[in-house]
Amino acid sequence: MVKTILVSKQSGERQPFSKEKFIESIVRAGATGDIAMEVADEVISNLYNGITTREIYKNAFQILRRKMRSLAARYSLKNALLELGPSGYPFERFVGEFFRKEGFMVKTGQTIFGKCIQHEVDVVAEKEDLTIMVECKYGNEQSKVSGVQVPLYVNSRFNDIKSVWAQEERNQGKEFQGWIVTNTRFSTDAETYGTCAGLHLVGWAFPDKGNLREIVESKALFPVTSLTTLNKKQKQFLVEKGIILNEHLLGRYDLLESFEFSPKKRDSVINEIEALSAVAKIL
Amino acid sequence: MVKTILVSKQSGERQPFSKEKFIESIVRAGATGDIAMEVADEVISNLYNGITTREIYKNAFQILRRKMRSLAARYSLKNALLELGPSGYPFERFVGEFFRKEGFMVKTGQTIFGKCIQHEVDVVAEKEDLTIMVECKYGNEQSKVSGVQVPLYVNSRFNDIKSVWAQEERNQGKEFQGWIVTNTRFSTDAETYGTCAGLHLVGWAFPDKGNLREIVESKALFPVTSLTTLNKKQKQFLVEKGIILNEHLLGRYDLLESFEFSPKKRDSVINEIEALSAVAKIL
Repeated sequence: MVKTILVSKQSGERQPFSKEKFIESIVRAGATGDIAMEVADEVISNLYNGITTREIYKNAFQILRRKMRSLAARYSLKNALLELGPSGYPFERFVGEFFRKEGFMVKTGQTIFGKCIQHEVDVVAEKEDLTIMVECKYGNEQSKVSGVQVPLYVNSRFNDIKSVWAQEERNQGKEFQGWIVTNTRFSTDAETYGTCAGLHLVGWAFPDKGNLREIVESKALFPVTSLTTLNKKQKQFLVEKGIILNEHLLGRYDLLESFEFSPKKRDSVINEIEALSAVAKIL
Repeated sequence: MVKTILVSKQSGERQPFSKEKFIESIVRAGATGDIAMEVADEVISNLYNGITTREIYKNAFQILRRKMRSLAARYSLKNALLELGPSGYPFERFVGEFFRKEGFMVKTGQTIFGKCIQHEVDVVAEKEDLTIMVECKYGNEQSKVSGVQVPLYVNSRFNDIKSVWAQEERNQGKEFQGWIVTNTRFSTDAETYGTCAGLHLVGWAFPDKGNLREIVESKALFPVTSLTTLNKKQKQFLVEKGIILNEHLLGRYDLLESFEFSPKKRDSVINEIEALSAVAKIL
């Protein structure tokens, strides 16, 4: 049995450390039960009489972050995105989710009138005084490259739409931006032209700051294709049902029922989803 | 034997009609010997004593044009263009030849600096105060359609280049045009956007006036792929040697030698080339 350790509370009062209560608080912070237990064991090994609550939680949060990061790192988000295909629609939804998390009102697959013609626009994101038109270029192979024609045609499309938007009364004083987001990469010419033309280009590793890798990792945008407990066909089924992110599956476990999993298998899937969901809260 | 017919010359003098001299003059006008003979036979059947030289030649030219047109019509220029592939280069050369015939200085396959990047431009045609940048879209199937992305990216490319051209001193006062020429067709959106954006779109049947069909027929631009006396492989060989039009073959019959034709076969090829060349002069 562990010897009783006295902890100094902020009031100056001392009370014995309770492993049970500590685990509860870590779970409330977003960790799964397993990980909370591991964190507790590590925290306990660092305890000393008179340690403050503040120190315990500072230590606990560091351990928690380290464990969650290594959990998240197990998932190759790049590969998960490459598996969102075969069509480009799930990637458009995925990009839409990113803008939604950033506080934008998001619409996908819109038909929008320009000065000359109407255009199919993958994502339209609006926030206060900013309206963004996004062209999504999805590739299911790492080697796929968006060439210079992409920013060239997107620039004309953006200008054709902007000339209508800019005249609408509700849009006075608003800023308009044209973005191109790809899960693979742009040719050098595409990067040079797009940037020069004032477009915002986001590739897997472009630009150095604010590229797609940074965005999906920092926002912990886990697509269902990142789950290791589902096979390709099952992931595809979910994607076709419009379940693009793991968090879309939370509360829709009924969809897993059609896979006829054993109770044990079902639990392992749910555990994985919840563990990754916890990562998203903590990172 | 044919009875002697007296012909009234402009001087009022009468002299007997000479079939031999008549055939010679039709051949000088561009007809092949065979066709000149056919024309002579038809002209002779319409002769009467006292007919004027003027009437004879008016009649002869009508017959000649009818025969040449039916000769030209035997060649499907649309199919001949569809056989220029597999790459798009021969079609670029072909489009260049059209502008050359219109009196332009023509360069194909140029790399040109724009404001943001350098671009590959298929054809640049210059004449007096007009410089034209041409994007060629070659399709080897009738069903191939240039979609709206084509005029969208060409418009950006044209604007990027124009902003450099317009600043050069030698270009002051010059007009710049962006053209897209395809041997197949444009989507409706492509036509609408391209026209609205101020580009010049030329498809096989677009626009109603000045389309590619009209251009190649009125200029009798016969590509070597229109010859019926050569097989696909032989035509391909010539195209790869840069021989795009039949008239490029005139005086380069040495190239036919590598086909190891019999003298009879070689003569039939040369006769066909010369017949079509005559069409070009007469139509």
